[in-house]
Amino acid sequence: MKNGLHILLITCLSGSLLACQQTPPNSKNLQVSSQLQQDALSSTLAYDLVESLTVEVGPRLAGSDKDLVAVQWAEDKLNQLGFDKVYKEPVKVPVWDRGNAEAIVVAPYPQGLVITALGGSVATPTEGITAPIVRFDTLAALKASPAGSLEGKIAFIDHKTERHTTGKGYGKTVGGRSRGAVEAASRGALAIVIRSIGTDHDRMAHTGAMRYQDDVPRIPAAALSSPDANQLNLMLKRDDNVVLQIKMSPQSHGYATSYNVIAEITGSSKPDEIVLIGAHLDSWDEGTGALDDGAGVGIVTAAGKLIQDLPQKPARTIRVVLYAAEELGLIGGKAYAKAHQDELAKHYIAAESDFGAGRIYQIDYRVATQAFEAVLAMSAPMASNGVAMGTNTASGGPDVSMLPKQGVPVASLRQDGQDYFDYHHTPNDTLDKIDPAALQQNVAAYAQFAYLMAQSEIELRPLATK
Amino acid sequence: MKNGLHILLITCLSGSLLACQQTPPNSKNLQVSSQLQQDALSSTLAYDLVESLTVEVGPRLAGSDKDLVAVQWAEDKLNQLGFDKVYKEPVKVPVWDRGNAEAIVVAPYPQGLVITALGGSVATPTEGITAPIVRFDTLAALKASPAGSLEGKIAFIDHKTERHTTGKGYGKTVGGRSRGAVEAASRGALAIVIRSIGTDHDRMAHTGAMRYQDDVPRIPAAALSSPDANQLNLMLKRDDNVVLQIKMSPQSHGYATSYNVIAEITGSSKPDEIVLIGAHLDSWDEGTGALDDGAGVGIVTAAGKLIQDLPQKPARTIRVVLYAAEELGLIGGKAYAKAHQDELAKHYIAAESDFGAGRIYQIDYRVATQAFEAVLAMSAPMASNGVAMGTNTASGGPDVSMLPKQGVPVASLRQDGQDYFDYHHTPNDTLDKIDPAALQQNVAAYAQFAYLMAQSEIELRPLATK
Repeated sequence: MKNGLHILLITCLSGSLLACQQTPPNSKNLQVSSQLQQDALSSTLAYDLVESLTVEVGPRLAGSDKDLVAVQWAEDKLNQLGFDKVYKEPVKVPVWDRGNAEAIVVAPYPQGLVITALGGSVATPTEGITAPIVRFDTLAALKASPAGSLEGKIAFIDHKTERHTTGKGYGKTVGGRSRGAVEAASRGALAIVIRSIGTDHDRMAHTGAMRYQDDVPRIPAAALSSPDANQLNLMLKRDDNVVLQIKMSPQSHGYATSYNVIAEITGSSKPDEIVLIGAHLDSWDEGTGALDDGAGVGIVTAAGKLIQDLPQKPARTIRVVLYAAEELGLIGGKAYAKAHQDELAKHYIAAESDFGAGRIYQIDYRVATQAFEAVLAMSAPMASNGVAMGTNTASGGPDVSMLPKQGVPVASLRQDGQDYFDYHHTPNDTLDKIDPAALQQNVAAYAQFAYLMAQSEIELRPLATK
Repeated sequence: MKNGLHILLITCLSGSLLACQQTPPNSKNLQVSSQLQQDALSSTLAYDLVESLTVEVGPRLAGSDKDLVAVQWAEDKLNQLGFDKVYKEPVKVPVWDRGNAEAIVVAPYPQGLVITALGGSVATPTEGITAPIVRFDTLAALKASPAGSLEGKIAFIDHKTERHTTGKGYGKTVGGRSRGAVEAASRGALAIVIRSIGTDHDRMAHTGAMRYQDDVPRIPAAALSSPDANQLNLMLKRDDNVVLQIKMSPQSHGYATSYNVIAEITGSSKPDEIVLIGAHLDSWDEGTGALDDGAGVGIVTAAGKLIQDLPQKPARTIRVVLYAAEELGLIGGKAYAKAHQDELAKHYIAAESDFGAGRIYQIDYRVATQAFEAVLAMSAPMASNGVAMGTNTASGGPDVSMLPKQGVPVASLRQDGQDYFDYHHTPNDTLDKIDPAALQQNVAAYAQFAYLMAQSEIELRPLATK
């Protein structure tokens, strides 16, 4: 409480007077916000939820049997926690099964390599694909190679992902994963392998979604672990002609129904206005999806539960959305936006937790320019939880990233992502990678954010252009 | 040079006068030792050798085709380096092929687990073995369970390996790997799984040798990755009845011939007396054996080469031995001891480098009690390379560990093993885990050790009883 007032004072002294006049978190908001922080930092609920999800459900690839087990798990948990409303909404998701993936160097130095299929990849023929590799530093370098230049070859994009707190290294390399197959195939390649989009040095390949294009042949696409990508480089240093054999057996099986699972705390005075906090329920199939996105599920659910248990509910409704099939292309997020099209004007603000379990160090918004200072002032109590006030350029997180286009304000609660891409989309995404104390700090931040936004009287629209 | 004299002085002041009288590293030894250190710290030879071995040969399980590729690689390299003698000696090794290993939890929470077969394990039936698990904290706890108590069960030893610079955590847990199957089977178990003998939190299981006993049924034995062992614990916390299914297809195929590959720098005045520095050429099959024991191969070979290139050879012969089949039970080491039985009395001292690529922080000896102070004084120049003088309780390293029983003095050049058991016997044992500067420090230490011992006039026998 003392901290909160102190920060407010600093904000008022250093920020705009207008903001302070418009939006002092009044003493009740300060008091509740302080209480939420205190409660979050002493609650094990988020960790218990991640443990339960990762142990009792485990991997839960969208469209798989385990995906529906996860949906049932989520409904049961949300009901047990006593939210005002719990419901689910169907989402059509593709069904893809990983099968096996093997790679060997045939020449000059025969040995096995560790690979994994990229999500959505087609299979190789049973006998595999055997061809020389052509190495590119980046996707851009591959795109600069001439038509036909990869005929009979396997393309190899060898782009290293940099380690940053913000995770910005991922944005620079992930295009090779998502668009590499199309670019390689359009130049005649038989298959593509990429250095994993990851910052670790483990002998694990990072999977992740890739896309095909209707007018371009569909070629198998796989990721190599970082040490295996190094190994190919050291072979190429000795001999230009490195021949790989890849065998992969993923299969697509049409579509299945999954669900966005939703819980609500009904607003006390503006129940039709929504503050949305989300995470995604699906995971890749190789780890247990602890960081991606069990952590998010635990964080936003526990944050919602703290608000559900308040003696007096905030003005607006808080909606906790556990999205389906984020990994396969933000499918649950897009389905939500479509299903709630008519209600989007009533979405006050939205944020998704989907960047692991590192501490939140900053909150960014995307709101009206004239509202930005005011919303920062309103958020000032979050500072005592280690959350600095940031910029007005947030995307909000993957499953809400399409909402700003429709006028919905968003916030990004920035997590420390130093080690997130060590584990992301690998078998190593397991419970032991989560620091319970950091998870509690996240819960505190989401609870404060959701509560303060549900109480805010600031007009957040129209959005600032980025 | 200055450093060397300074250290000698300190040793003389603080150590026994006798030692100083007997064994001053004379000015020539000091000068050569200093030059060896300087040359080692500016040479990339050891790293180049490890890179060549891990890239051009890769995994080289004793008894496999790649094992013979490694033998040829070693002969070629040692010949190219111009050692006075290069030869190989046959070693009979068992042939074992890993096949596949899969485990799933059948109940209560179906999901896959990451396992690997322990080296030498038999296969499961094709349909696998499906049974409830019985968890033990340690091998000792399993041994305390009554006869028949594991009938129809899969034993699970869940002993965590502690992280220590010395690696001593390994010694406390490895018995579960080597002897667990016999102990479990003698109590009726159908199979055994153990928490990997490792200090990491990676989703990789650590393989390693295990033994059977003629009068006890041979049951399949596998290691679980650390996160998977955690997962079983979290399931057992919820439900006593955790049912596993294990499918493994390793196969034994009799015996093959491998080789100890040996190089010598012929001694100038006592050519029939031997200073042996060794490492093992074989590796497990899942990584590329960079740390275990490509590093050792690089270190002792590069150290030998520095001495080979000296303008004046030391008194004794230095023998670089690259042992066969260490991983399968010190087979090359035992074969060497047998083949050189008649020559062991002429082995002045022996040491093996087989603990990765961490810096050497201490040298321990096992020599005559009355020689110990003198040999420390003789070794004093190693201090300028960061090597402290240690105890008189060395084992010498796995492949020379049987020599003290036959009267041969040994030394252990202790490496920092903080992270060694993160990677040991996993797919993660790859070149990127080696710090080139630390490798150079090792080469300097081995070159100084070998040279000084080849020049020493101290009588090292009879050995101190441990």
